[in-house]
Amino acid sequence: MALLKDLEWRYATKKYDPNKKVSQEDVDKIVEAARLAPTSSGMQQFRVFVISNQEIKDKLVAISNGQQIVSDASHVLVFAAWNKYTEERIDSIFKLTTKERGLPADRFVDYTNRLKAVYLKQTPEENFAHTARQAYIGFGLSIAQAAELKIDATPMEGFNSEQLDKLLDLDSKGLKSVLMLPIGYRDEEGDWLLPMKKVRNPKEEFAVEI
Amino acid sequence: MALLKDLEWRYATKKYDPNKKVSQEDVDKIVEAARLAPTSSGMQQFRVFVISNQEIKDKLVAISNGQQIVSDASHVLVFAAWNKYTEERIDSIFKLTTKERGLPADRFVDYTNRLKAVYLKQTPEENFAHTARQAYIGFGLSIAQAAELKIDATPMEGFNSEQLDKLLDLDSKGLKSVLMLPIGYRDEEGDWLLPMKKVRNPKEEFAVEI
Repeated sequence: MALLKDLEWRYATKKYDPNKKVSQEDVDKIVEAARLAPTSSGMQQFRVFVISNQEIKDKLVAISNGQQIVSDASHVLVFAAWNKYTEERIDSIFKLTTKERGLPADRFVDYTNRLKAVYLKQTPEENFAHTARQAYIGFGLSIAQAAELKIDATPMEGFNSEQLDKLLDLDSKGLKSVLMLPIGYRDEEGDWLLPMKKVRNPKEEFAVEI
Repeated sequence: MALLKDLEWRYATKKYDPNKKVSQEDVDKIVEAARLAPTSSGMQQFRVFVISNQEIKDKLVAISNGQQIVSDASHVLVFAAWNKYTEERIDSIFKLTTKERGLPADRFVDYTNRLKAVYLKQTPEENFAHTARQAYIGFGLSIAQAAELKIDATPMEGFNSEQLDKLLDLDSKGLKSVLMLPIGYRDEEGDWLLPMKKVRNPKEEFAVEI
């Protein structure tokens, strides 16, 4: 029940104590959960930017509709996905896998050819629709890892992704921002959401057994 | 480290023992992790269908490019997202939240009006691009919950979603299938992937500190 208890404990923190910092060790674990996340064909179509620099965090406020949260949080994680598939990107993890598992060099040639036939035919927009989805899996697992460590987090989609891409120079890396995750420690007195009950649709409405 | 150990333990199981069934109690926990998942504005834009009926599971094979896995697994979870936003859908969770938290009836009127101004202006395709993303968060958490219980799972995007929508009559429910998650117990001898090393891009390539 550890995970379920962690998920019950967490909430989308609305106010952080700007003086409490998350340790490097804990930040590393939160990133590690995203790194271990399953992704489509194991390609890890996203990267995580870990922002602790206060000047950069302050610049995030204007990009996030004036939300102070991104400045007050200890760190802000930005999840950014490949802006498109390329032959090199598709080959990359399979080259590493071939090496790490000591497999014959041509082990994944048929498989990667099939992936290339699908993805390289699509538009960059269609590619990104797929790569961005993968980031959500890692995002969920980072939130769960933060909760396990009793570190607060705020899942955020509401920001100007073009401005964020520019600030972090993501275009030159072939990435586009998808999600932000401020992490830190709640301001116990200042957060209006903290005392509120967590509400979800009841199980009977959420799940159907067949 | 519980979650990280669970994520290290799990792998995309390729062969299930068709004779081993997951208990109802454990299935409920795996669904509960998805139900507790954070979603955009807390709207829970997806639902989970839990298939244990063998006839239906057998029909999933043809829909999944002939993959036997969906027949052999104990249960197959289907994550399906809203095919579009509607006024009623946007209001739904906020009505419940108002009631559960004992808030004034108009507490969320401004907020839901802003959501409606954004989503009801978009095409159903744009709506679904957003709702489908939310399903990935719950999907990741269900995979993590399965791993905590030492239950195997296979994240799957590769299936004919139109055929699956038809089989489960999702259109009449205003839903479209996004993901499948067979769960069960691995066939220790028959699964070629089981002895293979898990491979991920190294941390230095995956994460950037700023």
